[in-house]
Amino acid sequence: MASEERGPARPDAAPLDAGLLSPVRAGTEAEAATGDAAYLAAMLDAEAALARAQARLGIIPADAAAAIGAAAADAGRFDAADLARRARGSGNPVVPLVADLRALAGPAGRHVHRGATSQDIADTGAMLVAARTRRVVLAHLDRALDALAGLAARYRDTPMPARTLGRQALPTTFGAKAANWLLGCLEARGRLAALPLPVQLGGPAGTLDAFGDRAFDLVAAFAEETGLDRPVLPWHTRRTPVAELASALALTAGALGKIATDVWLLSQSEVGEVAEPAGEGRGGSSSMPHKRNPAMSALIRSAALQVPAQAQVVLAAQAAPHERPAGEWHAEWQPLRESLRLTGGAAETAAELLGGLEVSPALMRADLDDLLDVLGDDPGTGAAAALVDRALDAYRRSRA
Amino acid sequence: MASEERGPARPDAAPLDAGLLSPVRAGTEAEAATGDAAYLAAMLDAEAALARAQARLGIIPADAAAAIGAAAADAGRFDAADLARRARGSGNPVVPLVADLRALAGPAGRHVHRGATSQDIADTGAMLVAARTRRVVLAHLDRALDALAGLAARYRDTPMPARTLGRQALPTTFGAKAANWLLGCLEARGRLAALPLPVQLGGPAGTLDAFGDRAFDLVAAFAEETGLDRPVLPWHTRRTPVAELASALALTAGALGKIATDVWLLSQSEVGEVAEPAGEGRGGSSSMPHKRNPAMSALIRSAALQVPAQAQVVLAAQAAPHERPAGEWHAEWQPLRESLRLTGGAAETAAELLGGLEVSPALMRADLDDLLDVLGDDPGTGAAAALVDRALDAYRRSRA
Amino acid sequence: MASEERGPARPDAAPLDAGLLSPVRAGTEAEAATGDAAYLAAMLDAEAALARAQARLGIIPADAAAAIGAAAADAGRFDAADLARRARGSGNPVVPLVADLRALAGPAGRHVHRGATSQDIADTGAMLVAARTRRVVLAHLDRALDALAGLAARYRDTPMPARTLGRQALPTTFGAKAANWLLGCLEARGRLAALPLPVQLGGPAGTLDAFGDRAFDLVAAFAEETGLDRPVLPWHTRRTPVAELASALALTAGALGKIATDVWLLSQSEVGEVAEPAGEGRGGSSSMPHKRNPAMSALIRSAALQVPAQAQVVLAAQAAPHERPAGEWHAEWQPLRESLRLTGGAAETAAELLGGLEVSPALMRADLDDLLDVLGDDPGTGAAAALVDRALDAYRRSRA
Amino acid sequence: MASEERGPARPDAAPLDAGLLSPVRAGTEAEAATGDAAYLAAMLDAEAALARAQARLGIIPADAAAAIGAAAADAGRFDAADLARRARGSGNPVVPLVADLRALAGPAGRHVHRGATSQDIADTGAMLVAARTRRVVLAHLDRALDALAGLAARYRDTPMPARTLGRQALPTTFGAKAANWLLGCLEARGRLAALPLPVQLGGPAGTLDAFGDRAFDLVAAFAEETGLDRPVLPWHTRRTPVAELASALALTAGALGKIATDVWLLSQSEVGEVAEPAGEGRGGSSSMPHKRNPAMSALIRSAALQVPAQAQVVLAAQAAPHERPAGEWHAEWQPLRESLRLTGGAAETAAELLGGLEVSPALMRADLDDLLDVLGDDPGTGAAAALVDRALDAYRRSRA
Repeated sequence: MASEERGPARPDAAPLDAGLLSPVRAGTEAEAATGDAAYLAAMLDAEAALARAQARLGIIPADAAAAIGAAAADAGRFDAADLARRARGSGNPVVPLVADLRALAGPAGRHVHRGATSQDIADTGAMLVAARTRRVVLAHLDRALDALAGLAARYRDTPMPARTLGRQALPTTFGAKAANWLLGCLEARGRLAALPLPVQLGGPAGTLDAFGDRAFDLVAAFAEETGLDRPVLPWHTRRTPVAELASALALTAGALGKIATDVWLLSQSEVGEVAEPAGEGRGGSSSMPHKRNPAMSALIRSAALQVPAQAQVVLAAQAAPHERPAGEWHAEWQPLRESLRLTGGAAETAAELLGGLEVSPALMRADLDDLLDVLGDDPGTGAAAALVDRALDAYRRSRA
Repeated sequence: MASEERGPARPDAAPLDAGLLSPVRAGTEAEAATGDAAYLAAMLDAEAALARAQARLGIIPADAAAAIGAAAADAGRFDAADLARRARGSGNPVVPLVADLRALAGPAGRHVHRGATSQDIADTGAMLVAARTRRVVLAHLDRALDALAGLAARYRDTPMPARTLGRQALPTTFGAKAANWLLGCLEARGRLAALPLPVQLGGPAGTLDAFGDRAFDLVAAFAEETGLDRPVLPWHTRRTPVAELASALALTAGALGKIATDVWLLSQSEVGEVAEPAGEGRGGSSSMPHKRNPAMSALIRSAALQVPAQAQVVLAAQAAPHERPAGEWHAEWQPLRESLRLTGGAAETAAELLGGLEVSPALMRADLDDLLDVLGDDPGTGAAAALVDRALDAYRRSRA
Repeated sequence: MASEERGPARPDAAPLDAGLLSPVRAGTEAEAATGDAAYLAAMLDAEAALARAQARLGIIPADAAAAIGAAAADAGRFDAADLARRARGSGNPVVPLVADLRALAGPAGRHVHRGATSQDIADTGAMLVAARTRRVVLAHLDRALDALAGLAARYRDTPMPARTLGRQALPTTFGAKAANWLLGCLEARGRLAALPLPVQLGGPAGTLDAFGDRAFDLVAAFAEETGLDRPVLPWHTRRTPVAELASALALTAGALGKIATDVWLLSQSEVGEVAEPAGEGRGGSSSMPHKRNPAMSALIRSAALQVPAQAQVVLAAQAAPHERPAGEWHAEWQPLRESLRLTGGAAETAAELLGGLEVSPALMRADLDDLLDVLGDDPGTGAAAALVDRALDAYRRSRA
Repeated sequence: MASEERGPARPDAAPLDAGLLSPVRAGTEAEAATGDAAYLAAMLDAEAALARAQARLGIIPADAAAAIGAAAADAGRFDAADLARRARGSGNPVVPLVADLRALAGPAGRHVHRGATSQDIADTGAMLVAARTRRVVLAHLDRALDALAGLAARYRDTPMPARTLGRQALPTTFGAKAANWLLGCLEARGRLAALPLPVQLGGPAGTLDAFGDRAFDLVAAFAEETGLDRPVLPWHTRRTPVAELASALALTAGALGKIATDVWLLSQSEVGEVAEPAGEGRGGSSSMPHKRNPAMSALIRSAALQVPAQAQVVLAAQAAPHERPAGEWHAEWQPLRESLRLTGGAAETAAELLGGLEVSPALMRADLDDLLDVLGDDPGTGAAAALVDRALDAYRRSRA
């Protein structure tokens, strides 16, 4: 029997996704922070925070909030796969989640999800995941930035050929190249760190209709309980926060992808001016023991090539009907998760790559000499050193 | 402590992806057929098939092929999460997979992966997954086509308003609308079914260097053993098969998305000419018991809005360097999987939706009467009935 | 002879693009501000500004700068089509442009483009076009915002059904809907207005090598002479400015697309709660005199569906090799122009649409009554009025 | 006054698009075949062909068809810019075009556009443009294929290093590389050539309501008169033809982009194994006379990076409402044009590039010697020569 006819692999042979097709984030912190378990926990956190906020305002009894919090505290009591399947009925996982949470919360169950709509919890959960993953991404970006600042300083005056359209052009320095990488990451970091990540609370029609004149106090309390930002209005179909987030992640993935592209090209056999960190299991080939591949660069680039397309989906989903769309909102979820975990994986990989990057001033010099032979004289590296100083200065100011 | 500060959810709190963010495919056959477990099994199947093919040609001993086949038969003996993490070292999961398979195969281990490169196994595995998932998708499309043919025939002469830019235009029939849906799915089905899905075998440099003058015989035998198609040349960096596959899936998702868009609009409160199938847990709202939402349409639309962006990644990855790219290939994997499972989930959802679609000729008539009042007279439904007959005829011929 | 065989239309039968395929921007200010003529003028402005800046620093003679400025002042003396064709030789239009400008500038010609590289001029020209088009876009957004604030205030208490997944859900107000639109545009406007749009100046290797210790003074003077922002470093392959710009335009197009989607749906024959402005030639059909189409909404939506894909190209192009890429940079140009003119056209169209939007509180009331019949009682519009007040307050503060 | 404040360039300073931002297609045949003038002529051809077809069936008088044909024969009598602006009223350019054509046709004017809807003419016009441009693209692909077959044959046995992830891997031949390029183009050519490009005819509701029992005879006659294919049903909102076309163009652009990527990398200063054709004005730099840039590769790559995103728009637009969408259809037009002209420009550029590609067997040999030093022995080029033969055989069969 031909293998092809063996048929779909047995459905019960988990897992659906352990990172096998996405090594750039396999085993990374961002992967863990964006898994279904993390989303489930975040939605439960949102329900618990809503209950606490409502208890603070006297909308529900304090002991009900406590009971809800207790029931929501352990995401392990909920079955993500079962919730996912039941989500097909209503179109989103909050409907079955609320049912299960109510059942677990006993008599307090009737206070669960008071006045909220599914999207309030799903969006707030997504923002909690985004906030938690952002911390991870920023931490890895900081490691990468430290490494980049070190490279820029150390190789401030190390000359090498600048290359345009793949051809050696004029001298530059490796410090100037690292300074450019540094500033790109710094700009992306700043953008990402500054994004507001608001709670969502509007109720079924976005009018906060269940909360009377305590509506805005409740939104504020909900924001405090979650640690998220306070929105001006509910944003069920005003998708600025997710559109901005997807854009900032694509900017970040691009800044990292720029570095990886250069490392790949500089580590070509014929160039060899840099090499990825060596070590057990790194850069190996299944068939060629002599090779040392720029595998980390390839992985980072794999993210940089995907995230912009995920951002496209999120940006296009802004044009969403009425008070809740029939598809546009649902189309956002997975692309936003992909953007978070691909970018986070790329940041973690880049921190590792840059922390151990091997640089060969001698080969840079040799290639430069070839160029200077063509040029006939040495035009020097211009303001390259000053460019490094400016980038390092911008970096230090960002740290202050 | 604010919830947001609780930090990334515990990494060991599986699962990473049980479908929670993608209900369109949660629990569907396509989801199972495209999970990491399915990819792992397919890559193992590829190694086993390669060994069998090599044994047929006397390249390796027959008992070695048998031992390899036995070791590869149970994907459950391999740890996908561990492989994924180790894939970070080499950039792809085949390197650690081969190591583990060799260890399992005992003395036959040295015959595993003979003359192959990682991409041979990864690409062949992906094609096996594609072939298996395609069968699932085609089966659900067939169910949808049957339902559509039934709708077209049953409502062949049921008049309703045609709508352009959202405005009632002139009369048409619901049969003509269903005929258009039918033909769209039929065209997509034909395209998808006709795609060649070839094995990949080229070795490290794409030259089949390890196989001497038996190279093409081996490719043919490998194709037979897998049930996949035979390529003219290795396609490591000639990505026609995956580019065509991604395009065909986007075409299919679009054909289904067209139907879902119409169902969503026809089931608006103010129109009500169709309704999604009713039933336990279907179309529910977490906050509004009176509502019956077109949830299946929303899910299908969520797929149709995502797949084209995944296709974009795959299409752009064609411009890949040399004999193996540093990123473009790696960027294809997850988007191709997403395209398969989103389209498959959409097809399964559409089959369910169309099989139970509730149609109200009376409300169609009432809306049409409003239009005829505006028009002043009844221009009739033109060739609508003949259009239905043509579509049904095309459908029947496709079945013959 | 069949028409299809008539062959390509005569090459000399201009024009290549008068907007026929993109009516959303046909004849708009943004179209004029982004045409090839505008880009050509902007690149010439960049050369003239560079000469002035260099004259200020004594790098070139003042009269040379004046002569260059005079030669560059009239873009009409340059042949864009000829430049475009000659651009094929070098890959960019600046090489032939500099040649022509040198020829026109007479003896001052040798001072043209001193120390610059093609990308300095092309990028600075693009930023000038962006800055000029941004003014246009912001002005139209301001008109739209004014209209939206008027709608929100006027219909603050006009009840209507909120709709989720196309189904009537609970009461809201048209004011709340307009407030949501208003805030979305306001957020996009803020993002777009805040973007830095820097000059580009780095020379062939990005090291400002030709300018000695006056390098940064020259960058500052160049920024002043152009009216653009001063960059920290050259950004030849650190594409933050264009990536941010494309993202902000996609955010803006999305905010406008949200409005257009709602207007399209509210103006359906069966809903009719709003109508696009009437008037000569508006909303006409080539075949159905009785119809009044939401044509402006369709056009705005056509932009919202395109701009995210253009942003995808720009975001993906960040991962660009070395000091100048072989393709990624060149791939940015047209998508960035498309993003500018589609968004600008959408803003102008939206201002026109919103300025004349016809609202029917009576039909809103009638639809709401249908909903209330289903609900059995009237839950009221919650905090809808307060939401309007908050949005208007945010709007007024943005104006202060 | 700062330049930035000079304001939008004068609107009357044509042209809007002479190719300045898209040199890959500037001055190419595909550019001419896809300009607004070509679209205008094609829509007029569609009206004339419809009239002829109707005259054949006796629906309108033969002399009316002749008069319409005469009025439509010279697109130069119509003002594309004016039509574009007037298209804003109805959302598409056919409404004003029909008005102008009726005026020009005198008494026959009342027979213009009989029973048709705007989309019938716009879509048929687009298909005519596609058919005409396809001929151009195929011709340039044929030139490229000839050159590729020549390269594959000539360098069938020329050894060079294969490179994976940028690292020299094992020996291959330049012939094998060219064979892979050849087969990729051949597959894309086959796909593109096989696409049906049908006429569109359905009337306002897609029911062919104006034509009674002659409806399908008229569609057939219309197809004959245009030289386009006959559709099974009208495809106003069943976008298979355009979705397939956009996909095939992206496949083609990708196959060309693959070649350009390799040429760029092989022509790096440190590799130098190939060089783009030399000549007046080719590969020049505005600042570095010593450089010879792979400008044609950069241009081809610029297309390959854009077309997939344009295809994304077209593929996503399939999910279009009812019998005519409010935006999705309108969003297709420019991306489809871009796909056609970028791919056509890339094909023409590739034909030029490949026709003059300079290949250095000596440098290939030198690089290979470096690799063999690392390997320690020479594993040979495997089946590389046989791969060439298979590709050439496939090519010859395609020609038969």
